[in-house]
Amino acid sequence: MYTVCVRDHMMIAHSLAGEVFGPAQHLHGSTYVVDVEFRRRTLDAHGIVVDIGLAGETLKSTLAALNYRNLDTERDFSGSNTTTEFLARTLFERIAAAIRSGKLGPAALAVESLRVTLHESHIAWAAFEGEISAT
Amino acid sequence: MYTVCVRDHMMIAHSLAGEVFGPAQHLHGSTYVVDVEFRRRTLDAHGIVVDIGLAGETLKSTLAALNYRNLDTERDFSGSNTTTEFLARTLFERIAAAIRSGKLGPAALAVESLRVTLHESHIAWAAFEGEISAT
Amino acid sequence: MYTVCVRDHMMIAHSLAGEVFGPAQHLHGSTYVVDVEFRRRTLDAHGIVVDIGLAGETLKSTLAALNYRNLDTERDFSGSNTTTEFLARTLFERIAAAIRSGKLGPAALAVESLRVTLHESHIAWAAFEGEISAT
Amino acid sequence: MYTVCVRDHMMIAHSLAGEVFGPAQHLHGSTYVVDVEFRRRTLDAHGIVVDIGLAGETLKSTLAALNYRNLDTERDFSGSNTTTEFLARTLFERIAAAIRSGKLGPAALAVESLRVTLHESHIAWAAFEGEISAT
Amino acid sequence: MYTVCVRDHMMIAHSLAGEVFGPAQHLHGSTYVVDVEFRRRTLDAHGIVVDIGLAGETLKSTLAALNYRNLDTERDFSGSNTTTEFLARTLFERIAAAIRSGKLGPAALAVESLRVTLHESHIAWAAFEGEISAT
Amino acid sequence: MYTVCVRDHMMIAHSLAGEVFGPAQHLHGSTYVVDVEFRRRTLDAHGIVVDIGLAGETLKSTLAALNYRNLDTERDFSGSNTTTEFLARTLFERIAAAIRSGKLGPAALAVESLRVTLHESHIAWAAFEGEISAT
Repeated sequence: MYTVCVRDHMMIAHSLAGEVFGPAQHLHGSTYVVDVEFRRRTLDAHGIVVDIGLAGETLKSTLAALNYRNLDTERDFSGSNTTTEFLARTLFERIAAAIRSGKLGPAALAVESLRVTLHESHIAWAAFEGEISAT
Repeated sequence: MYTVCVRDHMMIAHSLAGEVFGPAQHLHGSTYVVDVEFRRRTLDAHGIVVDIGLAGETLKSTLAALNYRNLDTERDFSGSNTTTEFLARTLFERIAAAIRSGKLGPAALAVESLRVTLHESHIAWAAFEGEISAT
Repeated sequence: MYTVCVRDHMMIAHSLAGEVFGPAQHLHGSTYVVDVEFRRRTLDAHGIVVDIGLAGETLKSTLAALNYRNLDTERDFSGSNTTTEFLARTLFERIAAAIRSGKLGPAALAVESLRVTLHESHIAWAAFEGEISAT
Repeated sequence: MYTVCVRDHMMIAHSLAGEVFGPAQHLHGSTYVVDVEFRRRTLDAHGIVVDIGLAGETLKSTLAALNYRNLDTERDFSGSNTTTEFLARTLFERIAAAIRSGKLGPAALAVESLRVTLHESHIAWAAFEGEISAT
Repeated sequence: MYTVCVRDHMMIAHSLAGEVFGPAQHLHGSTYVVDVEFRRRTLDAHGIVVDIGLAGETLKSTLAALNYRNLDTERDFSGSNTTTEFLARTLFERIAAAIRSGKLGPAALAVESLRVTLHESHIAWAAFEGEISAT
Repeated sequence: MYTVCVRDHMMIAHSLAGEVFGPAQHLHGSTYVVDVEFRRRTLDAHGIVVDIGLAGETLKSTLAALNYRNLDTERDFSGSNTTTEFLARTLFERIAAAIRSGKLGPAALAVESLRVTLHESHIAWAAFEGEISAT
């Protein structure tokens, strides 16, 4: 299995509902350093998993929709806790949709699975991984 | 699959028996920067894999039982080589037991598997991963 | 010159006033991974720059006053842009005051200067450094 | 499953054929920081996955065959794009062959799979992983 | 003293003349992860050292003039060994010139000194630092 | 000012005398990832600060004298607490002596100062820096 990974980041504000979150129930924020791994069993005719330029641009534009925002006021997330786990899944689904829509080019349609990791500090991260067709 | 990871460290002395270990047969020591990954297929009602506060406390207390020790004199390890691999397995079993005993809360009982990684330097690490029920 | 450094982090929300900040004028947030360096010319009788346990606790309690907060509503920062640079200076002054007040122990009074670095992502950081007596 | 990982690096020049590579069609170069993970289900009699000294030497000698070279003039790669993905696979096959030939010692014959990761910058990496017997 | 740092990278081919360079006399290549630190004693009216957006763009455009190139054929470097040290100085001078020419805005004219660091692997880096007016 | 840095590591056991050290009074151990920075104002005729190959070898041989040892039984350290700070100074003096004795070659005699940093975990490090002639 081949994997290619690109990294970028976003800086958001949010709060989390539930006593389990302790002080994180207050409005606070986070830098998420985001890794997206693209996986497939064989390389394309150029010897690559995905056009890394398009992969980076797709990650950047996907993050741009959330970057510099207060997630508590985003309609898409109304009623949801925007935990790191939840955001990893959200980014997974949006990038998977971009691949299926052809935004990463025809060769990227052979990408089988993705793993999206959000590093929230030097001591904690969360990830979501899955098959692209399974979303 | 969702993953949440927390990081902490311990500083131990030990020696390793067997010519394969070369100079590491002498009493020496290591800082182990330890990552514990908690994995499950679905999130709980709060949108999390595990209470990250309890996860961090469990890791800290698990490491505290070994931290600042000479592992050569620990009864639990009598007759064993405390290699990085062995210690990864040891921490895996202790954290899995903590989950099963409810120390990470009822929602954590849904955690399916763990991966424990011990970074021993900037150029080497070892890990053990497995199903929680399989231990 | 000897230096000892300890690391911790905080997660805050804020916004920044001024067109120069572009999208960061919106309410957003940041994880700051914070390094504090303590510097002195000679070691104390125990062979250390500072009691690293007290140094870590001081850093943690200093960050706790800001952690999980929306800095836009903190009275201390009313009328100020809480830029990374500004926060580095703020933490510098608070930790210098803690040293002068004896919270890090009598030996720490010999610490001559501090450097406080806030890593805001994998591609950007800011720092403030200065003499302790000069603050 | 146990994993042991060792890290080293190489510095090569190359160019990549195809419009998809944009400016990387020009002769340029890269530092690849290379991680090799060795995996097996059980430890050997010494409590290890592999002799980490031999693992490191094997990685170094495998990289030495490519290090400080212009890959465009290497016969082995004639007609191939030496993408990061391709090089990950190449190193995988060479290290797998070294294991099968006994260069890592008899105990290493129990290694089941490998993962080879090439970090090409702070924001991109590629990997190849597979069963050793499947190569 | 305040510091702000931004990071980017470039990927170049080159060779180095002189027996001291051993195998690096061959045409090879390197990824340089580049940190540029901007330093000044006081903040501007917005509470910043420099417009970090302009700082990042200036770094990117400065690197673009070398990125994906074979430095052995660059006229600017004819007769020079493009060592990591030499490249750190070159980038220092180009970014200092950009500041003096106003490309980072009027407030950046108060930046007093720069430090440019090129990380060439996980185990080696080189830097050049100096006053801006002293170049 | 130019700087070149090389990195290596050592793994030692020791204990520290004094209540200030808490649990570190017990025999324990540490991995020290060691950075040595070589500094000078001008480059030599080859465009370098120091022969990086000799610098790396000197660091490795300097660490080899301590690596895989119990520092509590080393005569050189009898009566001293082998704190991270103390070890940074020790390595500084030994590498400075190697430079003065010509082990890094004649060009390295122009190195003016050194900084030795010992990373003991992901959240703590210590360093010693000074003029070479001043030791």
